[in-house]
Amino acid sequence: MIDKLIEGIKKKNAPIVVGLDPMLKYVPEYIITEKFNNFGKGIKGACEAVLEYNKGIVDAVCDLVPAVKPQIAMYEQFGPEGVLTFKKTVDYCKEKGLVVIGDVKRGDIGSTSEAYAIGHLSSVEIGGDYYEGFNEDFATVNPYLGSDGIRPFLDVCRKERKGIFILVKTSNPSSGEFQDRLIDGIPLYEHVARKVDEWGSDLLNADGSYSYVGAVVGATYPEMGAALRKVMPKAYILVPGYGAQGGKGSDLKPFFNADGLGAIVNSSRGIIAAYKQDKYASFGERGYADAARQAVIDMQQDIASALG
Amino acid sequence: MIDKLIEGIKKKNAPIVVGLDPMLKYVPEYIITEKFNNFGKGIKGACEAVLEYNKGIVDAVCDLVPAVKPQIAMYEQFGPEGVLTFKKTVDYCKEKGLVVIGDVKRGDIGSTSEAYAIGHLSSVEIGGDYYEGFNEDFATVNPYLGSDGIRPFLDVCRKERKGIFILVKTSNPSSGEFQDRLIDGIPLYEHVARKVDEWGSDLLNADGSYSYVGAVVGATYPEMGAALRKVMPKAYILVPGYGAQGGKGSDLKPFFNADGLGAIVNSSRGIIAAYKQDKYASFGERGYADAARQAVIDMQQDIASALG
Repeated sequence: MIDKLIEGIKKKNAPIVVGLDPMLKYVPEYIITEKFNNFGKGIKGACEAVLEYNKGIVDAVCDLVPAVKPQIAMYEQFGPEGVLTFKKTVDYCKEKGLVVIGDVKRGDIGSTSEAYAIGHLSSVEIGGDYYEGFNEDFATVNPYLGSDGIRPFLDVCRKERKGIFILVKTSNPSSGEFQDRLIDGIPLYEHVARKVDEWGSDLLNADGSYSYVGAVVGATYPEMGAALRKVMPKAYILVPGYGAQGGKGSDLKPFFNADGLGAIVNSSRGIIAAYKQDKYASFGERGYADAARQAVIDMQQDIASALG
Repeated sequence: MIDKLIEGIKKKNAPIVVGLDPMLKYVPEYIITEKFNNFGKGIKGACEAVLEYNKGIVDAVCDLVPAVKPQIAMYEQFGPEGVLTFKKTVDYCKEKGLVVIGDVKRGDIGSTSEAYAIGHLSSVEIGGDYYEGFNEDFATVNPYLGSDGIRPFLDVCRKERKGIFILVKTSNPSSGEFQDRLIDGIPLYEHVARKVDEWGSDLLNADGSYSYVGAVVGATYPEMGAALRKVMPKAYILVPGYGAQGGKGSDLKPFFNADGLGAIVNSSRGIIAAYKQDKYASFGERGYADAARQAVIDMQQDIASALG
């Protein structure tokens, strides 16, 4: 799957993943009104509105980007119906040929971590047959519990040829509270990065250039990105924090390898709610998907000019 | 909700939470056969079997224990239908008067963490009205992302009078890989514990003895439990790792305060799959719920004698 991701990035010249993190306040009124009329005002109507909104964006950007990253929290807030909408979103994106990174930040131990890995990246055995749960292509994983939490994901990745992105240095202001603390003179995030390199060392793609085991490093910390790029040269870096969180195109170069690969940059709000920005206001709410498309094109140019 | 938990622990003389982590291999064959016959062999049949199995256990133990802790991973592996089964389990346990700790180990930042907090502990706003997602009483939370990930949960806990248990020192063998590393001479888990104490300092129960913000510390590390008990005196400690993972009753004393309170011990497999142990084999698979009840009684005695 890492090869499919790399191929998509090359073909579309876009190391970009669109974050499908739909807050209800982003969804245009006309969609909400229609869905409330058809499905009632409530959880079902809201979820149908979210799904329609997502589909519009996916249709508008699927020829431009290789991947999407639905954030499951935004669906989980609606309970079981929301989680079903997450699954429908995953399925729709896969139908459109996109690589789907489930931003689930799961992490537990032993059989529990295995259950998460099965649910998100593989299929569950029921009486000798196998059934699909969510079946994303990649998942994000939290490392706090150590190798016991990661190994079940590695086993599933090996079997399914899928991948994970492990949280190393997150994009938020307080990420340093624990992640930056020095242990034997080296920040915790770098200790985690060294383990990412180790965990991924025997899970390499066809030409051995990149691993199934990637890392999350925030665009808001470019100097750390530069250091971490060297610590885990074969890890694909998923870079959140571009756009709405303050990361700029000019911050991104350190996250890439000399081959021009090795990183994929996420933008969520900046794309999916572009029509709410002054810059794209002329699209109007009925043009929300076209606004998203234009925001992707602008992001593509921003990154291309930064990478030179 | 922390007061309801404490009251239940006192009344039932049982600082015990039953982990509802149903693996399909624990579910008696007769239940699986019946549900496959009625709902088909597949996800739906499996989920109905899990729900029936859970209900049997809950019915058998609800007068003995104050709380249950469904582990969402075990449901999530079945996809959306599994997550619906998690919700049905939560609802059933609440109907029976039990405090429900959602073992979800979520953790993200800003509006994303807020979405998790809303989904699991509060209700989501849709056009001015509020709708329930999963609505557990407590949730477990991962601290790796720092305060940005925790604060949205604190806000929701304050509003709803609910609580969280933050992962401090987990029960698994490799938990020390990151958690035990020394930062300024103090292990990472203790730095997290200090923050737990701080985060919970203005979220106290009616008599000011305990906080809405608790911690997870594994029974497998009693000496660390003793140190952590002092670092966060007002945090309730959720103690996993008893039983199947190797923690013994005699290990538990350090987790409690002098008032005999301050900790609640989880057992999952050791209770819900008791009928598969030699010790409880005489109950047979049709007696799985009675076996679970007996295992709770034995655990209660083990803890009582350890606490003196």
